[in-house]
Amino acid sequence: MAFLSVLTPVFVAVLCVMIGLIFINSRKTDRVPRPETKGGSKVESRPWVDQDLQDDTEITPRDGRSKDDDWADSNEEEDLPHVPYSPPRYPVERMLERSQDFYSVMNQRRSVRFISSEPVPRDVIDNVIRTAGTAPSGAHTEPWTFVVVSDPETKHQIRLIVEEEEEVNYRQRMGDKWVNDLARLRTNWIKEYLDVAPYLLLIFKQTYGILPNGKKKTHYYNEISVSISCGILLAALQNVGLVTVTSTPLNCGPQLRLLLKRPANEKLLMLLPVGYPASDATVPDLKRKPLDDIIVRV
Amino acid sequence: MAFLSVLTPVFVAVLCVMIGLIFINSRKTDRVPRPETKGGSKVESRPWVDQDLQDDTEITPRDGRSKDDDWADSNEEEDLPHVPYSPPRYPVERMLERSQDFYSVMNQRRSVRFISSEPVPRDVIDNVIRTAGTAPSGAHTEPWTFVVVSDPETKHQIRLIVEEEEEVNYRQRMGDKWVNDLARLRTNWIKEYLDVAPYLLLIFKQTYGILPNGKKKTHYYNEISVSISCGILLAALQNVGLVTVTSTPLNCGPQLRLLLKRPANEKLLMLLPVGYPASDATVPDLKRKPLDDIIVRV
Repeated sequence: MAFLSVLTPVFVAVLCVMIGLIFINSRKTDRVPRPETKGGSKVESRPWVDQDLQDDTEITPRDGRSKDDDWADSNEEEDLPHVPYSPPRYPVERMLERSQDFYSVMNQRRSVRFISSEPVPRDVIDNVIRTAGTAPSGAHTEPWTFVVVSDPETKHQIRLIVEEEEEVNYRQRMGDKWVNDLARLRTNWIKEYLDVAPYLLLIFKQTYGILPNGKKKTHYYNEISVSISCGILLAALQNVGLVTVTSTPLNCGPQLRLLLKRPANEKLLMLLPVGYPASDATVPDLKRKPLDDIIVRV
Repeated sequence: MAFLSVLTPVFVAVLCVMIGLIFINSRKTDRVPRPETKGGSKVESRPWVDQDLQDDTEITPRDGRSKDDDWADSNEEEDLPHVPYSPPRYPVERMLERSQDFYSVMNQRRSVRFISSEPVPRDVIDNVIRTAGTAPSGAHTEPWTFVVVSDPETKHQIRLIVEEEEEVNYRQRMGDKWVNDLARLRTNWIKEYLDVAPYLLLIFKQTYGILPNGKKKTHYYNEISVSISCGILLAALQNVGLVTVTSTPLNCGPQLRLLLKRPANEKLLMLLPVGYPASDATVPDLKRKPLDDIIVRV
């Protein structure tokens, strides 16, 4: 007991450090509140307050506590004039027909992992990317970069990086269940299409922008914006008879960013091999949910 | 000192609890590692290891430590047969033409905040949502619910919820910079279109699924998948001459989920008012980045 009493001041000191650590941890958590925790176990009192952005958008703190000089005061200065807008209008019969036709085209889209090496006109790819660039984005920041790789050596480097990481993903990171869920799609870490497809599209989200004066510009909802753009890109590819598979190579982003010399504000979101389908291409015989399973009418 | 020595066992006990708390906190952090911190201040040694899913997908832990009984072992059991796939193929000239035409249609799309109350055929909306449902999704989980609201009273309730929260967003949560960035789009917290538009589409992401046996099913990359689906939906709307504005009402999700009686596994991702443009609709005179600013060729 005498020995312990000598140690008491030490315990008190350690205790203070611990309390400090816990305090710091809890402040960190407060700064980036995540919405609802697993399984709806969230406290339900005023559940709508202080949700976060649902996105890893980098926002400058409003209270000015932190050194904020890297960030511009506003993304743009000018007040934009507003102009009349009257897009094409179709009679009801024609609308119905167009909606049905577009559905038919898009319903034929499948994720295809067997891609032909046959060349694809570059102008078509350019138009597809132009189309993806018409997507809306948070505060019109257009936070996307489309890297189009056709150089065989670079494609092969990408394949090596992706296969190395994907093997670790499949063997260690993803867990048996995820691997099982993918097994029926017959997908694994061997990605031959990365060498074979005439184009690899690597879609980067810009987590912030950089203004001409060097200041940073906030890119609101950049991940959601770039994903929406990818949806439009998939529609544009399908519209011209090209195929792809929408992949999100886990952990490969930083290596691929370095390989492609993209700046630090860009993060890889998706990698899409693009081409004609191989003549012997197959797809898993999946069905889509019927309309009544995805729509709720109120 | 004698007094303190009596308290020593208490300090030791408190110390143990603190260590326990810190351990639990650090385990929580390990479970959901966030990628790169603000401004690229991330440690750069082996930067590609242990990135997370870039998404708030709920993944069951692989090591079986935690009580995991709510989750199914695999999303689906059956081994799917593979079938030949040969989508339509167009001659090069036709591909070019189609790619140009689709770009022209999509390039006319604008976010429109002035929507006519004129009715829109329900079948067209159904086809648009069918089309959105053709999007790819992580492991084909189709993690989306499209709530289509046409009931005037419900639309008004939605408006009240959104305007109340958006006013707080604009006045307090968003910060002057964000508000400035939006000012030039002439958008604020008054959302008349929520009453006026014939349809409000509320797009929910299902953060996990529920199997017929009641077990939970992992929805990989659900936010990215639903955003891609939204991109295809925007293309489908544009294709029939309807307009919308892609909004992400900050903090309104939980209230709107309760109003619409959606289950706990669904989170609001986007809210889109849909209709014909108002006859006097205007849009800010924005330009899009030219192709060379969004494409990188390698």
